[in-house]
Amino acid sequence: MNNPFFKNNGPFYFSEIIKFLDLNIKNIKQDKQIYDIKDLVTSNNEDISFFHSKKYKDAARETKASICITTEALKNELPESCLALIVENVLVSTSKITSKFYPDSINDNFDETVNPIYDTNFKDKVNFGENVLIGNNVSIGKNCKIGHNTIIEKNVVIGNNCLIGSNNIIRNTLIKNNVKILDNCTIGKHGFGFFPVKGKNLRYPHIGLVIIEDNCEIGCGATIDRGSMSNTILGKNTYLDNQIHIAHNVKIGENTIIAGQVGIAGSSVVGNNVKIGGQAGISGHLKIGNNVEIGGGSGVIRDIPDDTKVMGYPAKNIREFLRDNR
Amino acid sequence: MNNPFFKNNGPFYFSEIIKFLDLNIKNIKQDKQIYDIKDLVTSNNEDISFFHSKKYKDAARETKASICITTEALKNELPESCLALIVENVLVSTSKITSKFYPDSINDNFDETVNPIYDTNFKDKVNFGENVLIGNNVSIGKNCKIGHNTIIEKNVVIGNNCLIGSNNIIRNTLIKNNVKILDNCTIGKHGFGFFPVKGKNLRYPHIGLVIIEDNCEIGCGATIDRGSMSNTILGKNTYLDNQIHIAHNVKIGENTIIAGQVGIAGSSVVGNNVKIGGQAGISGHLKIGNNVEIGGGSGVIRDIPDDTKVMGYPAKNIREFLRDNR
Amino acid sequence: MNNPFFKNNGPFYFSEIIKFLDLNIKNIKQDKQIYDIKDLVTSNNEDISFFHSKKYKDAARETKASICITTEALKNELPESCLALIVENVLVSTSKITSKFYPDSINDNFDETVNPIYDTNFKDKVNFGENVLIGNNVSIGKNCKIGHNTIIEKNVVIGNNCLIGSNNIIRNTLIKNNVKILDNCTIGKHGFGFFPVKGKNLRYPHIGLVIIEDNCEIGCGATIDRGSMSNTILGKNTYLDNQIHIAHNVKIGENTIIAGQVGIAGSSVVGNNVKIGGQAGISGHLKIGNNVEIGGGSGVIRDIPDDTKVMGYPAKNIREFLRDNR
Repeated sequence: MNNPFFKNNGPFYFSEIIKFLDLNIKNIKQDKQIYDIKDLVTSNNEDISFFHSKKYKDAARETKASICITTEALKNELPESCLALIVENVLVSTSKITSKFYPDSINDNFDETVNPIYDTNFKDKVNFGENVLIGNNVSIGKNCKIGHNTIIEKNVVIGNNCLIGSNNIIRNTLIKNNVKILDNCTIGKHGFGFFPVKGKNLRYPHIGLVIIEDNCEIGCGATIDRGSMSNTILGKNTYLDNQIHIAHNVKIGENTIIAGQVGIAGSSVVGNNVKIGGQAGISGHLKIGNNVEIGGGSGVIRDIPDDTKVMGYPAKNIREFLRDNR
Repeated sequence: MNNPFFKNNGPFYFSEIIKFLDLNIKNIKQDKQIYDIKDLVTSNNEDISFFHSKKYKDAARETKASICITTEALKNELPESCLALIVENVLVSTSKITSKFYPDSINDNFDETVNPIYDTNFKDKVNFGENVLIGNNVSIGKNCKIGHNTIIEKNVVIGNNCLIGSNNIIRNTLIKNNVKILDNCTIGKHGFGFFPVKGKNLRYPHIGLVIIEDNCEIGCGATIDRGSMSNTILGKNTYLDNQIHIAHNVKIGENTIIAGQVGIAGSSVVGNNVKIGGQAGISGHLKIGNNVEIGGGSGVIRDIPDDTKVMGYPAKNIREFLRDNR
Repeated sequence: MNNPFFKNNGPFYFSEIIKFLDLNIKNIKQDKQIYDIKDLVTSNNEDISFFHSKKYKDAARETKASICITTEALKNELPESCLALIVENVLVSTSKITSKFYPDSINDNFDETVNPIYDTNFKDKVNFGENVLIGNNVSIGKNCKIGHNTIIEKNVVIGNNCLIGSNNIIRNTLIKNNVKILDNCTIGKHGFGFFPVKGKNLRYPHIGLVIIEDNCEIGCGATIDRGSMSNTILGKNTYLDNQIHIAHNVKIGENTIIAGQVGIAGSSVVGNNVKIGGQAGISGHLKIGNNVEIGGGSGVIRDIPDDTKVMGYPAKNIREFLRDNR
């Protein structure tokens, strides 16, 4: 799938990429064009990829990318069809290349493309409040409401029968049908993703979206960040209470219920029919199975298998937690 | 007390109610009119009530309701004066009947009744900022200030000498005198109350209010949800720091102090002169006594008696907590 | 340094101060003028100071203040050059005197001085969105952006190349260069500081600022309160994720990274190069050293020395935490 929202400035010649990274590579046999930057799995032979940790060596061995940013220590895992570009810091170099392909995905300044909704074609189609602003590249389905002071920034698709409250800011987001968003939410901003550099951190691009499936409800004051290289997803009929933070790349399943002030850190995956109690936190890069129940206030720092009830910090089996804390 | 904010669409004939719930009851002796739906205690003989758990059997035995939604297993607890309506799921049926009486209490769409304050009678009475909106059925006392971009939606009563900041959204709320609300708060929206149904959850009505007594202060970014069948209440001179979440039906006493990022789950009751440290969480349906101190970060999952200091997750006596964690 | 934002209504004669505090002191030898109220360390011989706890006896012995509000039990720690004013409650009396010098620092009503930015001199200098408001005593550097509905209230200095998003409210704040503030933040309001008094708490003044150094980034929904008698400070290149609460007088060092939903209570000091995981909380009046790592969800209730990794509630050495929780 082409990225629907972020314009790809490519293709770039391989020689341009080498020059941009300040690499000293001679004798380029064939100066081919590179069309996109993707992860190891989804790259094809016109793309550049990146490989920075042994954890991904299985994906590395199978990658179809024609070039891969990596290290001396990892390069031998790549197939012969893939040329290794050896760099000092894989993630920093990946960030630089991604920002070359997608320069608009680094910073999230306020959207200068917006117009008051009554100056747009939506004025006869949408039921809207005072001071509503609409950016470029927005579409809105039938029978939608948008409340006062809400800003639908650029790159937003809204389905049918959606109820969007007041004081929200939404960008880079696909909202399906029958979705309800209450007030004061910020949805689709870049995540908290950057490389720490003393004096001036280096932000990396966020070219993912937020996708909110049918029948979801999102409470007041939510922050839902868009993905960096993949999307942030809320599955069908998932309900969020107030003051919830969903970080970049998080994927949440269907029919999941999340109580107030919960936070889910970057890239974690939450299954279907999960119940998460208030103020619980889930660390990054975890997998929470289906039909899991997480007690209020829990701190989840390990994967949780399907059909499990946990509580505590760190979260453990709820019977064990209650027995240890009689 | 009649509900001051939600219009009661009743009365309905008993026969209408039976038909609406799709029940097969024959031989209705007397097709009387039913005026309201109330809990077991406050119902009178023109009301319908509901009884879904053994926990409430004492209230059930004493109820004056003339009809009660309940189950086969519970019906014998009801007095002879009360006709049991046997249903599969008491709460779902109750929700349906409540929404028949109070159809406006299910969804919280943005308030379409608002007008800019300078187009209302308040323009000469209130000291107001830019872009302030006022809905239907609002009253405001003497010597009040309302900040920029604040939306006083429908069904709000504000007393004298109240200071309301900027970017707030308030509805279905009684604010007494000398109350101060800082910025960015959302007060009076429906709570996170619904019946989980795969594919499409079923919201139940919230006909309660938020009541904020004299001299309270509410910090930035608060979310205070209105009650479902009762009210959400903050007692006199209670102070809330920033980013606090108060769920539906919570009742907080007088002179209570609540630090930043605290969350109190639905239907819990907090006493007078209570101090709650930052980021503490209180589970739903608990009773926290008077003069209680709850340490920062605590997770309270059991009732706490008067005059107790607790800390920890789960919260326990603070001496025990400190001894166990030297 | 004179306070750049809060107007000092002094000087006041010593006799006025005595009268204001309702003290019965006779035989004033010399009715000198008092120019300011400061802490024990920074006072000079034209100032009044306050001394309420033995913890500060070293500072008390060295103070250059000519008058000091204190108690019978503490007065003997003061040097001969300093006249002790004996009161019942030092902090309440200090609050009263501070509010006499700085009456504008008690309450934070909405800023009535604001004008739409297009009616100000900034209209040709700043890149701004819809409905932006600017208060008195604001300066903005080169190449800045200010997003929709943002209110730059009175007493704000913004440096060069700053990117300020939408729906923010900022007052009493010094923002240096290259700072990025996302959306929905409230920065520079008074802290949660008051003396509990039954029936009607007594707010004390907040004459401090918020200072945000070069290259900082602040995520969506932050609340950063200004200091009471000192400033709230974020050091250079410090990054805050979404929904973070920074209380009054907190000082954070350089290159520090703070994940989502963290809360730092009043007057705590956090060092340089610190990493704080999501939802962690830090109690008030603590000292967190340099190069510290605090795991997500931790509750820090004691000082943490440099170069330490901690986790848990209460936070302890991370190895110990993981060993105890295998």
